[in-house]
Amino acid sequence: DLSAKSSSTNIPVSRSLDGAINSLPGANIALVSIPGEYVYSEVDRILDKNINAFVFSDNVSIEDEKKLKEKAHSKGLLVMGPDCGTGIISGVPLAFANVVGKGNIGIVGASGTGIQEVSSIIARLGKGVSHAIGIGGRDLSKEIGGVSALDALDILERDEDTDVVVFISKPPAESVKNKVIEKFKSMNKKIVAIFLGEKPEKEEANIKYVWTLEDAARQAVLISEFESQVSSALKSVSEKVETIKNNEKQRKIQGYFCGGTLAGEAAILIKEYLGKIENNKSDGFMLNYDGHQIIDFGDDMYTKGRPHPMIDPTTRINAIESLITKEDVAVVLLDNVIGYGSNDDMAGSLIDSIEKVINKKKEKRQEILFVASVCGTEEDIQVYSSQVEKLEEAGVIVLETNAQATSFVTRLIEKLKNEKQDVKDKKSTMLTEDLKVINIGLESFSGAIKKHEGEVIQYNWAPVAGGDKKLQNLLAKLNSF
Amino acid sequence: DLSAKSSSTNIPVSRSLDGAINSLPGANIALVSIPGEYVYSEVDRILDKNINAFVFSDNVSIEDEKKLKEKAHSKGLLVMGPDCGTGIISGVPLAFANVVGKGNIGIVGASGTGIQEVSSIIARLGKGVSHAIGIGGRDLSKEIGGVSALDALDILERDEDTDVVVFISKPPAESVKNKVIEKFKSMNKKIVAIFLGEKPEKEEANIKYVWTLEDAARQAVLISEFESQVSSALKSVSEKVETIKNNEKQRKIQGYFCGGTLAGEAAILIKEYLGKIENNKSDGFMLNYDGHQIIDFGDDMYTKGRPHPMIDPTTRINAIESLITKEDVAVVLLDNVIGYGSNDDMAGSLIDSIEKVINKKKEKRQEILFVASVCGTEEDIQVYSSQVEKLEEAGVIVLETNAQATSFVTRLIEKLKNEKQDVKDKKSTMLTEDLKVINIGLESFSGAIKKHEGEVIQYNWAPVAGGDKKLQNLLAKLNSF
Repeated sequence: DLSAKSSSTNIPVSRSLDGAINSLPGANIALVSIPGEYVYSEVDRILDKNINAFVFSDNVSIEDEKKLKEKAHSKGLLVMGPDCGTGIISGVPLAFANVVGKGNIGIVGASGTGIQEVSSIIARLGKGVSHAIGIGGRDLSKEIGGVSALDALDILERDEDTDVVVFISKPPAESVKNKVIEKFKSMNKKIVAIFLGEKPEKEEANIKYVWTLEDAARQAVLISEFESQVSSALKSVSEKVETIKNNEKQRKIQGYFCGGTLAGEAAILIKEYLGKIENNKSDGFMLNYDGHQIIDFGDDMYTKGRPHPMIDPTTRINAIESLITKEDVAVVLLDNVIGYGSNDDMAGSLIDSIEKVINKKKEKRQEILFVASVCGTEEDIQVYSSQVEKLEEAGVIVLETNAQATSFVTRLIEKLKNEKQDVKDKKSTMLTEDLKVINIGLESFSGAIKKHEGEVIQYNWAPVAGGDKKLQNLLAKLNSF
Repeated sequence: DLSAKSSSTNIPVSRSLDGAINSLPGANIALVSIPGEYVYSEVDRILDKNINAFVFSDNVSIEDEKKLKEKAHSKGLLVMGPDCGTGIISGVPLAFANVVGKGNIGIVGASGTGIQEVSSIIARLGKGVSHAIGIGGRDLSKEIGGVSALDALDILERDEDTDVVVFISKPPAESVKNKVIEKFKSMNKKIVAIFLGEKPEKEEANIKYVWTLEDAARQAVLISEFESQVSSALKSVSEKVETIKNNEKQRKIQGYFCGGTLAGEAAILIKEYLGKIENNKSDGFMLNYDGHQIIDFGDDMYTKGRPHPMIDPTTRINAIESLITKEDVAVVLLDNVIGYGSNDDMAGSLIDSIEKVINKKKEKRQEILFVASVCGTEEDIQVYSSQVEKLEEAGVIVLETNAQATSFVTRLIEKLKNEKQDVKDKKSTMLTEDLKVINIGLESFSGAIKKHEGEVIQYNWAPVAGGDKKLQNLLAKLNSF
C-alpha cells in the first residue's frame, strides 16, 4: 500500500484501511465522515480491527446503527454516533469541536452543539474537560437502548482524570432512561444530567439534574472545584492518614463548634454519610452516635454563667485538651467564626491547645487530624486570611467552608476503612493511551488532531467498486470468507 | 432626659427610650439585648413607637413572641428574633455579623451562623448582600406561624436592590412550610431555599432547593450573576426597547441557529416562558407558535446540497435579510459557533446583513434588536473575544451563553407587554431609609453600627422599678392608660 504525506499539512495518507492501520499501529479511533450508505460496511471492518469508531456521517439506518453498536459492545469497543458532530478525547478535538483545556470534567453528549456549548463554558470559566464522548442522536432510543451511552459512562468511570460527568441528551425512551439513571447511581463520580426539555428532577444519590446547558457547565464546575479542594487537602496529609489507619482504634469523629447552625450542618452531612440516623439534639450534642460526636458549645448547657463560645474559647479549649487522653479519635472538626461580636482572635486562642494535643500524640508515634473552616471575610477585624494562616501554621487543615471541611472528614473516615479497592480492569485503550486516529473522509478533520498532538493518518476513502452497491455487497461477502 | 456621648466611642447615650427616640428622630430599628424576662414589655413599647425590633435576647416565652409578632405585623413592622444573632440591614452589621459588601442577594435566616456562613461565602466570592434579616429560631413553628418570615420575604420582594433571596431555616412546621413556599412562588424574585437536614426537593417555579449552606451561597451567586448580565444588557438598550414598544406591531421573536441543540434549548426556554406548548420539531422549526419562530438551519431541509450552516452562512444571511420586509419582529436570536469545523469568521459573515437590516429599520424610525451568544473559546482559531467584538460593533447584543441570550429575549418580550407595573406601596422604612438604630443593652453592638455609617444611639437600659416584676407590671398597666 502507498503511504504518502498530504502536501499541505504533512499528514500521512493511505489509500486503504489496512494500509492506514499498518502505518499507524495501535490506532484506537477511526473518524468516519463518508456517505451514510457506506458507513455500515466500513465501520464493520473497523470494529473487526479492534478500533473504536467516531461516526460523523449521518443517513445511517437505525438497524445498522444497532448492529454496529452491539458488535462494538461485545468487543469492548465504542461506536460514537452516527451523526456525531463533536468529540474531545484526551484533549484532542474531533470533528466540530472547540479548543478546551484539560481538566476533570467528563462529558457524554448525544449531539454536537450541546457538547460544544457545555465544554466552551467550562473552558471560559477556567476549568477543563477530560473527555467529551458523543453517542449520536438515536443512541437513547428504544431500538438502540443506550448501548454507547452506557459504555461511555463506563469508560469515564474508570478514567482517573474524570471526577464529574455531564450527561447531555434529549429525554431518553423510558426504559433506556431507567438504565442510564441506574448506571449513574452505580458510578463513583458525581453526575450532572440534562434531559433537554424535561424539568429537572430532584437531586438523588450522586445525580444533579439541570435545566440549561449553561447550568450543566456551571454545576459541573462547582462540583469539580469542591471535590478538588477536598481531594487536595486529603492528599496533603496522606502520610498522617496512613499512620492513623495503622492504629485500628482511631476511627472516630469529634466536632467542637461555636456556631449552632454550623454544628447542625456538620451533623447533618455526617449523618448522611453514616446512613439514616434520627435528627435529635440532646445535651448540646448535634451528633452522638457510635463514638462520633458533634457538640454545639453554644447550647444552653455549656453557656450558663459564661459568655458564648464565639467570644470565650474556654469550653472548646477544654474539649480539645481532653483529646490527649482520648484514644479513639481520628479527626477533630472545628468552626472559627469571626466578625463583629466574635473573639478578636479565635484562631490564636485555640492553637496552643491544638499544638499541645498534636505533640502529645506524636510522642506516642500517633497522629490526629484537626480540620477547620473560617466563617468570615477579609474585611472583618480579625481578617479571614490571617485566621486561616494561624490555623494552618498550627497544623490545622483549613477548608473554604463548613461543607467542605465536613466532606473532608467523611472522606477521611471512608479512607480509614479496611476495604479492598475495586480493581477496575483497564477496558478502554481509547482513553488510556495516546490518541491515534485514522481519519476516513473529510481531510479537514485531520489538521485539528495533529495540531493537538494526536497522531493521525488520512485514509482517502472512496466507494469500493466505483460505488456499485451490488458489487460491493458481493465483494464484502467474498472478503468475509 | 439626659443625652450624653459615650466617652470611648463618641456614641450618644440616652437613659430612656423616649429620650433616645427624641435624640434620634426617624429611628427605625431597636436592637434589644436585655434579659429575656424584660423583653416583652420593652419591645411592646418599641412597637408602640412604630419602630422595628431586632431581638438578640433569648429566654422569651413563645406566647410573648407570638403577641409581639402579631402586633408588629398589624402595624406593618418587623420583629426579628428572639434569639436573633445576626442581621445586616442596608450594609450595616447588627449583632454577630460579618463585614460583607452590598449587592443584590437578600437573606432571610432563622439563626445566626447560618446567615454568617452564607453571607461570608457570598462576600468571599466577590458578590454582596442587600439585607440579611434574622427571624429567630421559632418563627416557623406552628405556634408562631412564620409571621416574621412572611413579612421579611415581603420586604425583600419590594426591595429594588434585591434580585435573589436565600432562605435558611430548619424544616418548618408543615402548615407553615406551605405558607412560606406559596409566598416564594408569589414573589417576583428568584429564591434559593435550604431547610437544613431536609433533602432538597426538585426545582419548582422560581425556587431552587439546596442541601448545604455553601451551596445556598454559590447558587445565589450564580443566579445573581445571570440576572445581572441579562438586566445590564436590557438596560443598555432601554431607548431602543421604548421605540419598539411604541410600535404595537413589533412583538415577535425570530431565531436563526446553526447549532441544533442550541436552537432546541432556545425553543425550550421560550416555550417555558410562553406557557406549555408541545415539543415538536417540524420543517426545521424548533418553535413555530403565534408568530414566534426558532429555526435550526442545520436541519436536513435547509442543508440539501449545501454545506452545514456552521460553515456556510448563506441560509442565515437570507433569513436575516428577509427581516427587512417583516413588520412584526421585535428581536432576533442567533448563535455563533466557532472552533474546528466552523466558518473562519461567522460573525464577520453575518454582520453586513445585520447592519443592513438595522439601518433599513432606522430609515423607517424603527428599531430591531439582534441578540447572540458565541459558542467557543479564546483558543479557537476564530478567537472568542474577537467574534464577540465584531458582533457588538455591528450593534448585536452579546450575552455569555445561549441560556442568557434566550433569557434576554423572553424578558424583552415581557417588557414589551402593555401591562401596568404593580405599584408596590413602600411599606418598609427599615430598608428604604437610612438605618437609625436605638441600641438597647450590650454597648458593643453600637460600635459596628456607627463604623458602617448607621446612626446609632445607646440606650443604657436598666430594669424598671429595680427589677421588681410586680411593680413593673403595675407601672406598665398605669402607663398604658
